[in-house]
Amino acid sequence: MRTVPELIACKRDGGALSAEEIQWLIRRYTDGTLPDYQMSALAMAVFFQGMSEEEMVALTLAMRDSGAVLDLGHVPGRKVDKHSTGGVGDKVSIALAPWVAACGVRVPMVSGRGLGHTGGTLDKLEAIPGFSVNTTTERFIELVATVGTGMIGQTKDVAPADKRLYALRDVTATVESVPLIVASILSKKLAEGIDALVLDVKVGRGAFMKDLDRARTLASALVRTAKGAGKDCVALLTHMDYPLGFTVGNALETAEAFAILHRRAPADLTECTVELAIEMLVLGHVARTRDEARAKLERALDDGSALATARRMVQEQGGDPRVVDDPSLLPATKTRTPIRARSAGFVHGIDALEVGLAGVALGAGRTRSEDSVDPAVGFVLAKTVGDAVALDEVVAWVHSDDEARALEAARRVGAAFSIASDKPATRPLVIERVE
Amino acid sequence: MRTVPELIACKRDGGALSAEEIQWLIRRYTDGTLPDYQMSALAMAVFFQGMSEEEMVALTLAMRDSGAVLDLGHVPGRKVDKHSTGGVGDKVSIALAPWVAACGVRVPMVSGRGLGHTGGTLDKLEAIPGFSVNTTTERFIELVATVGTGMIGQTKDVAPADKRLYALRDVTATVESVPLIVASILSKKLAEGIDALVLDVKVGRGAFMKDLDRARTLASALVRTAKGAGKDCVALLTHMDYPLGFTVGNALETAEAFAILHRRAPADLTECTVELAIEMLVLGHVARTRDEARAKLERALDDGSALATARRMVQEQGGDPRVVDDPSLLPATKTRTPIRARSAGFVHGIDALEVGLAGVALGAGRTRSEDSVDPAVGFVLAKTVGDAVALDEVVAWVHSDDEARALEAARRVGAAFSIASDKPATRPLVIERVE
Repeated sequence: MRTVPELIACKRDGGALSAEEIQWLIRRYTDGTLPDYQMSALAMAVFFQGMSEEEMVALTLAMRDSGAVLDLGHVPGRKVDKHSTGGVGDKVSIALAPWVAACGVRVPMVSGRGLGHTGGTLDKLEAIPGFSVNTTTERFIELVATVGTGMIGQTKDVAPADKRLYALRDVTATVESVPLIVASILSKKLAEGIDALVLDVKVGRGAFMKDLDRARTLASALVRTAKGAGKDCVALLTHMDYPLGFTVGNALETAEAFAILHRRAPADLTECTVELAIEMLVLGHVARTRDEARAKLERALDDGSALATARRMVQEQGGDPRVVDDPSLLPATKTRTPIRARSAGFVHGIDALEVGLAGVALGAGRTRSEDSVDPAVGFVLAKTVGDAVALDEVVAWVHSDDEARALEAARRVGAAFSIASDKPATRPLVIERVE
Repeated sequence: MRTVPELIACKRDGGALSAEEIQWLIRRYTDGTLPDYQMSALAMAVFFQGMSEEEMVALTLAMRDSGAVLDLGHVPGRKVDKHSTGGVGDKVSIALAPWVAACGVRVPMVSGRGLGHTGGTLDKLEAIPGFSVNTTTERFIELVATVGTGMIGQTKDVAPADKRLYALRDVTATVESVPLIVASILSKKLAEGIDALVLDVKVGRGAFMKDLDRARTLASALVRTAKGAGKDCVALLTHMDYPLGFTVGNALETAEAFAILHRRAPADLTECTVELAIEMLVLGHVARTRDEARAKLERALDDGSALATARRMVQEQGGDPRVVDDPSLLPATKTRTPIRARSAGFVHGIDALEVGLAGVALGAGRTRSEDSVDPAVGFVLAKTVGDAVALDEVVAWVHSDDEARALEAARRVGAAFSIASDKPATRPLVIERVE
C-alpha cells in the first residue's frame, strides 16, 4: 500500500490512483485520520492533473458511501432525478417533479438552497405557506411511494466527506476542478437511491460554467461517471446568459413554476422543463421514444393529473395546495417599481449574473449560507431577449417595499438590459445533448 | 488586500504574488493564523506554476525574517559560506572552512545532519572526540572573529517558517519544487549574516537532483535569488554519480577531509574543495582572479596556516586538535571486511545512491531525524571510477564490527560497482559554473 504522500505525488505527476486507494483516502478523510493539509494538496494536484473516468467513479462512490444511502428498492417503478448546475430564474424542478411523477416515474428530489447569484429550489418551495422541506427518511420514501415525488433538503448524514471536502475546497482555491465537481454532485445524487439522472448543465454569464467548452467537459464527465457508477444518465447543455422565464425571486418563481402546468409560462421556461421531462420519462422507462414522452406529458396537462400531483405534493409536505392554482396566496410585496428602457430597439441581452446579484442585494438570495431570504422580493421581466422596446417603456418590475433597495435594484437590472437597433437572431435553449 | 483563497487561485492560474502578499502569508503562517491546509494547497500550486525571481526573493527574505538573523556587522572582512545540496562522501566543508579562513575570508558555517542516503557535516565533526557543534550565538560570532571560522548546527530560532513549511512539504509531496527549495536553502543561509555564498549543486544518482537540466534550473534560481536578495553568489554544478573521495562514514570522512590539507586526499575530492575555495576567495575579495586565489590557497598549505586554522577550530570547539594530523585518534572499528571485484576490467561506476543507502543500513546515517549514528562505521574504496581491477581484487573495505551487517553491506556495495572491459572516458568534476 502506498503512503499518502506517495499517492499525492502519483497524482501530482499525472498518474492514476486505484479505486482501493481512493476509497482508503476518503474513508480516512471521513474519520478524521487524513488531515486537511494532505487533502488540500491532493485536491490541488487533481486540479492540475485531472482524473480518469475510473478514478471519478471511485471518488464518487467513496464519497457517496461516506454517509447514508437511501434505499428505494421496495418502491416500485424507476426512480429518476434531475440536477441543475444552477442558474438565474431556474424554477424548473417545482413543476418538473410533479409533472414527471404524474406520468409514472418516481422522482425522489433532494435540492439545495440558493447561494451567491443562483437561487435554490428549497428557498422557492418555502415561499409556499406551511411547506416543509425537512422530513424523515421514512416519510420521504413514503412520499415517493404514494405521491410519486417528494422535494426535500439534504440531510446531515448524506455524503459527509463531500461536506468536509467542499468546505476545504472553498478556502483552498480548488473548487473549479471537473473531477471534484463531478464527485461532489454525483455522490449526493447517488445517495438518493436513484436509477437514473438527468442533468441540466447551464452555460453562460449566469452559470457556474461561463464557456461552452468547459461546460461540455463537465457534462461529459458527469454522464460518463454516472454511467460508470451504474446509473442511466443524460445531460442537456442549456443557455444561461439571461434569466430563465420572466421571474427572479422565491415566491415569484414558485408561481411561475406552477404556471408551466397551467400552460401559462414563458416559452423558454416551458421548453426547458419539457426537454428535461422528456429525458426523465425515457430514462424512467415510461416512454420508449421522445415523441411518446412528449405526448404523455401533454396528456398529463390535459387530464389535470400533473396539477393534481403538484397539489398533493404541496399538501403532503404541509403547504397550502391552493397556491398551485392561485398565486395570490403566496407572499407578495405591496410595491412594484418599474424599470424603463433607456433606448429603443430590441433586447439583445439581460445579464443573468447581474440580475442574480441584484436579487441577492434585494434579499431574494444569500451571500453566506447562514443568511435568511425574503420570499416576496424579486423581479418580473416585462420584456425578454428578442422583444422590441420603445424608449421609456417598462422592461421589468422590481418587487420590494424597501424604496432605497428597490431603486438600486432597478438601476442595476436596467443596466443589465442591452438594447440595440437590429433584431437579434433567436437560438434554441438546448445547445447540446450529452449521453 | 486579496484573501488567502484569492492568493492561492492567483498562483494556481499562473499569476504572481506581490512581495507584500508573500510577507503577509509567511508572517501569518509563522504565527499560526494561516492553516497548514491553505499553505499545502499554495505549495502544490507553486509546484505546478513556479515563481518569478521577485517572488523567490520575497519568499526567501520573508522566511529568513521569520526568525533570528545573525549580525556579523562588527566582524571585519567579508563573510562567505558554502552550501552543498548534498551527496555521498561529501566531506568538503571540514577542510574548506579552515582553509578559506586561513586565506582571510570569514566563514560562518551553519551545517546540517545527515538524512537519507546523504551524510551531514555535523555528524562528521562529532566523530572528533569532544567536538561540539552546539554553541551560543555570541560564542559563534567570537569564533568567526578570532579563528576565522566556526562550524555549528542550526539553532531553533533560525527561520522557523522554513522548519514548519519543510515538515509540511515532506508529507504533502511538495518537496521537489525549485522555488520552495531555493527559499528553504537561502532563508537559512541568509540568516547567517553572510555577504556572499558559494553553492555546490550536485547532479547524478547520489544527488537530490538526478538530471542536469533540473540541477541547472535549481542552480540558476539559487544564484538569481541570492543576488536579488543582495548577496554575491556563484554555483558550481558537480557530478555526484559515485562517492566523492574514497570514504563514506563519519570518522572516515573527517580523516579524509583533513588529508586534503596534508595534500594526501584523492584527486576528485581535492579538486572539488579547491574549486569551491577559489570561488570563496574571489567572492571574499581576498583574490581578484582565479589564478590569484589558487596561488593563495597553495600558499596556505605550504606555510601550514590552513592546518593551523583547522587545529585551532577543532580546539576552540572542544575537540582534540591532534586529529587533524593523526586520524588514528578518531573512532574506528576493529574489523574490516573486503569487497572483491566480481569481474575484471575497469570500474565504470559506483552507484552513489546505493552506497549511501548501504551506509545508512550500516549505521553511518539515519532514516529518521531522531536516529543516532555510529561514527566509526563506513566504507573505504580501494578503487574508483576509471581504475583497472582484476577478478577478486579488493575494490573496497567495509568498516563494521557487526558481521551480519558487514556482509550485507559488502554485498550491496559490491553490487554498486559496475565493471566493464573498456576504459571509461574521464570527465571533469565541475560540469558548469553558474553566476
